[in-house]
Amino acid sequence: MQQAVTAPAHVQTAIDLLRARFGERLSTSSGVRDHHAKDESWHVPHRPDAVVFPTSTEEVAEIVRICAAHRTPVVAYGTGTSLEGAVIPEHGGVVIDLMHMDQVLQVNADDLDVTVQARVTRKQLNDFIRDRGLFFPIDPGADASLGGMAATRASGTNAVRYGTMRENVLALTVVLADGRVIRTSRRARKSAAGYDLTRLFVGSEGTLGIITEVTLRLYGIPEAMAAAVCSFDSLEGAVNAVIQTIQLGVPVARIELLDDVQMDAVNRFSKLDYPVQNTLFVEFHGTEAGVKEQAELVESIAGENGGGSFRWASRPEERTALWTARHDVTYANKALRPGCEIWATDVCVPISRLAECIVETKADLAQSFLIAPLVGHVGDGNFHLGFVIDRNNPSEVAEAERLNDRLVMRAIAMDGTCTGEHGIGLGKMKFLTAEHGEAVSVMRDIKRALDPHGILNPGKIFTL
Amino acid sequence: MQQAVTAPAHVQTAIDLLRARFGERLSTSSGVRDHHAKDESWHVPHRPDAVVFPTSTEEVAEIVRICAAHRTPVVAYGTGTSLEGAVIPEHGGVVIDLMHMDQVLQVNADDLDVTVQARVTRKQLNDFIRDRGLFFPIDPGADASLGGMAATRASGTNAVRYGTMRENVLALTVVLADGRVIRTSRRARKSAAGYDLTRLFVGSEGTLGIITEVTLRLYGIPEAMAAAVCSFDSLEGAVNAVIQTIQLGVPVARIELLDDVQMDAVNRFSKLDYPVQNTLFVEFHGTEAGVKEQAELVESIAGENGGGSFRWASRPEERTALWTARHDVTYANKALRPGCEIWATDVCVPISRLAECIVETKADLAQSFLIAPLVGHVGDGNFHLGFVIDRNNPSEVAEAERLNDRLVMRAIAMDGTCTGEHGIGLGKMKFLTAEHGEAVSVMRDIKRALDPHGILNPGKIFTL
Repeated sequence: MQQAVTAPAHVQTAIDLLRARFGERLSTSSGVRDHHAKDESWHVPHRPDAVVFPTSTEEVAEIVRICAAHRTPVVAYGTGTSLEGAVIPEHGGVVIDLMHMDQVLQVNADDLDVTVQARVTRKQLNDFIRDRGLFFPIDPGADASLGGMAATRASGTNAVRYGTMRENVLALTVVLADGRVIRTSRRARKSAAGYDLTRLFVGSEGTLGIITEVTLRLYGIPEAMAAAVCSFDSLEGAVNAVIQTIQLGVPVARIELLDDVQMDAVNRFSKLDYPVQNTLFVEFHGTEAGVKEQAELVESIAGENGGGSFRWASRPEERTALWTARHDVTYANKALRPGCEIWATDVCVPISRLAECIVETKADLAQSFLIAPLVGHVGDGNFHLGFVIDRNNPSEVAEAERLNDRLVMRAIAMDGTCTGEHGIGLGKMKFLTAEHGEAVSVMRDIKRALDPHGILNPGKIFTL
Repeated sequence: MQQAVTAPAHVQTAIDLLRARFGERLSTSSGVRDHHAKDESWHVPHRPDAVVFPTSTEEVAEIVRICAAHRTPVVAYGTGTSLEGAVIPEHGGVVIDLMHMDQVLQVNADDLDVTVQARVTRKQLNDFIRDRGLFFPIDPGADASLGGMAATRASGTNAVRYGTMRENVLALTVVLADGRVIRTSRRARKSAAGYDLTRLFVGSEGTLGIITEVTLRLYGIPEAMAAAVCSFDSLEGAVNAVIQTIQLGVPVARIELLDDVQMDAVNRFSKLDYPVQNTLFVEFHGTEAGVKEQAELVESIAGENGGGSFRWASRPEERTALWTARHDVTYANKALRPGCEIWATDVCVPISRLAECIVETKADLAQSFLIAPLVGHVGDGNFHLGFVIDRNNPSEVAEAERLNDRLVMRAIAMDGTCTGEHGIGLGKMKFLTAEHGEAVSVMRDIKRALDPHGILNPGKIFTL
């Protein structure tokens, strides 16, 4: 049932035109608007005025042209799994839900690349290509859309070996703020032909254009893969084992830290029985001999740093269970206090500063009343705290904010970043200038040049 | 001795102000201007009105502010080794020669990164860090400056394993068109904080800003390295061996093709005795066991494609001689016809199309009167013809242009690029729209936003 709309007149005009064009594929119902008002973050939801469901790049361009003509905000929506409010339509307007743009368009197995529509999810892609012996490694916890992952410059547990979306997007199809459609690059592995628009749109969080198609690098499924879990006497020992592994250049596929608080939450949620200690989850990819060589080296480094022996997940289903437990930490943390939200921090520092950054952060936490498991892609210098908060309790929100402020400024002082992979969204806007200084003025210059009326995901990354 | 200057009045005003500020570090002498009129390409030289030699980022900013106030073109100059006219001051004005900005500023061995001033060359950097067990892999043939390599999005023989400047620049210090100075990123390995300005300036060829400092990723010198040369019965066999190696995911460090014409030139110039056949130069990096495993696999792939047995360069000095010969191809080709210039083509295609692209190109060459050795970073799908031409002979220039036009349009039709690593510069401007279509309008929007008066390296990449 359609609800009364209370949009501003110019937005209502855009909605009327969209309804005339898209009919039942435009919705202003309360339920649909509520669904598109939020993501998986702690940020307060805000409803769009309407939601439209296009099926093609050309339809997205039509929608944007109508919205541009009537100065109506446009926010692209994939799976709604942002951890930083990236898809919350803070200024109302029209949400473009790409749910019908979920086709794998072209697999070029010989070139190790694929082109997908933006709403194909990472698991859907991997299911599609697995029988060709291929995989796509980037794995944020959620089964996010590949367009959303590109827009957020996402990464995940495999980034230490395979890089982030920055390194793995070959080209994009993008609808610009005036409805122009561009392809940012061709499929060659490298090019020196003009400005790197691919990388400019990767991480732009829907503020410069709407990504409708993504061309990605693929990898052959390794001949051998082995994963293991290793418990440590101390947090410093676990972190130092990671640092030494990276500095030695061991090509680990994954090396993840979970602190004792996080391991307890994981055990409860995923019904596992790991020791409640600071723990590394590791994985090795390569030839049989290469994996054996890497594993022996890392196990020996771990042992020198107070790690126990490796508990191997040898069979594929054991490996899957291990990484599913790792990927489910957000849900595991939510389960610690039913009805609460997770405020996920996301700093990333040069690896030489990682132990210091984590130790100082844990000292802060020890003085606080908040629960906050720690988990991280420590091979990249990136880790998360998951503050478990009641969003409606001002003292909890204030305490999370205080701790996060301290953590971010600590990371920036160490030449790190406020966000390794979640994006600026709503929650990190206040840190952008502390991190980038005068460079923010260049970002604003680019935003104004490409979206002069500020209709694309307004209120994200920075205010104009 | 200072020569009379015939610059336009506004440019002369800028020069007078620069002379007042920089004294002897500004030159308008014929010799200095001639030296900065050209690069290593076939493009016709054009003299700047003056050359200035700053010592710091702040001095570069002062120069740019003066030039901006008087609408005077500014071109940054590193080693002058561009192969596409990137540093030729087509519109005159002021060349900023960064020769005094040649300091390695900070080696962070634990983080595997380094920050250098823009005029540090790749060999200088590698000499500086070698005794710490570190190296920087990107190696265009020339001993180019790292600032110039970043501005060109350069790569070279190691890109197949280590990526290009796109993947290996962590951060830049850039002087903008109005004299603002920005740092594009911090040192964390990954970040999702705002627009990727690092990648925007990498490959912008001095048209968006002047790079004065570069932070680069470093790598540990591998435990084992081995290089070999392998001659093939046919060109197709050599190319197919490369394609199969890449598709199998073998992490070769280098895999370079030289055709028989190129091998003959290399033998003559570098006094070597390789068979005059289509040949692959390969190199493997890793552990002792890993290198052995890779080498056996690739030797077997080569054998299945008509390759002979590997001729190993085992000792370090043999390996250096092998790669020096490879890197000297431009000079070897020039030596084929003393007094001539090299017109280097630079297409890059998806690897599944590489054999087809090379075979069609060789068929074109067989019908032509020009000499053009073929050499390439075939693991990336990138190869070069080196037309050996007399720049003053219009029929030779016209024939090179005809063949290059055909080659570029062939590569673009295969979803490839007109330039894998040399940049657009002067010579590829006419192909930019064929390659990128409407996306070029976005590049222009960005150029206008960041350099509204068009003073930065005008006449390169595109006309406004």
